[in-house]
Amino acid sequence: MIYWEDVTVGDAAEMGSYAVTREEVLEFAGKYDPQPFHLSDEAAAKTHFGRIAASGWHTAAMTMAVIVRHVTETRQAGLGSPGVDLLRWLRPVYPGDTIYVAATVVDVTPSRSKPAIGSVRSDVVVTNQDDQPVMTFTSIVLMRRRSDE
Amino acid sequence: MIYWEDVTVGDAAEMGSYAVTREEVLEFAGKYDPQPFHLSDEAAAKTHFGRIAASGWHTAAMTMAVIVRHVTETRQAGLGSPGVDLLRWLRPVYPGDTIYVAATVVDVTPSRSKPAIGSVRSDVVVTNQDDQPVMTFTSIVLMRRRSDE
Repeated sequence: MIYWEDVTVGDAAEMGSYAVTREEVLEFAGKYDPQPFHLSDEAAAKTHFGRIAASGWHTAAMTMAVIVRHVTETRQAGLGSPGVDLLRWLRPVYPGDTIYVAATVVDVTPSRSKPAIGSVRSDVVVTNQDDQPVMTFTSIVLMRRRSDE
Repeated sequence: MIYWEDVTVGDAAEMGSYAVTREEVLEFAGKYDPQPFHLSDEAAAKTHFGRIAASGWHTAAMTMAVIVRHVTETRQAGLGSPGVDLLRWLRPVYPGDTIYVAATVVDVTPSRSKPAIGSVRSDVVVTNQDDQPVMTFTSIVLMRRRSDE
């Protein structure tokens, strides 16, 4: 297992990728974000999107899928997250795109109240197949400390 | 239509509610956030969640569903969002819970570069059926200006 003590500021990881399909974009938007520019090429053509674009929350969800696959494969002792900061949707994500997730650790802090836990802040950058950033955020993740074994 | 000019700092809205089902919690987590505490009561019992809890990104998606229903019914001229700030998951959301979404406008700013657009920042608070806050964030939404008619 990778514990909080094993994480260092500056640690960088390419976490993997996710292929964005039209079917999934429409399914997610229909359920959670049924704004016209996420559901119809005609409606999207009247906006800066130009054609159907994924819901920003769908891009966040697909990014989370990549992150969870990575932390599971690398056996990180994650305990969930209290939140994220500065979530920005920088460019549309379109059906047919592939998104790539990279993260760099920017801060590690032991919990003041819980000696078994530490937190890790990371800058997450999501890019498309043309290497353009489409979404960024700062993640905050709680991890088990080695002393908790 | 409600345009950017029609929005004022201090405007508050109770946007509606969303019933959280076990089936949907498992479906979302299976697809986008397959951490054990989102998929198994046994695994969740070993964490502070206690039993299966919804992915925080699923809570965000369900909240978005409530917001989109509200802005559609009230005919707001929304143009999408550049992002959110200070997204915090404060308490677990469990299958069987009902979440309620409320928002208060905290800032309105005309676009410097695009005269047809303004932005609106709102503090969003999501509570459960016991009136406990489960998630908060500050949303940033772009709206069409009346001059754009």
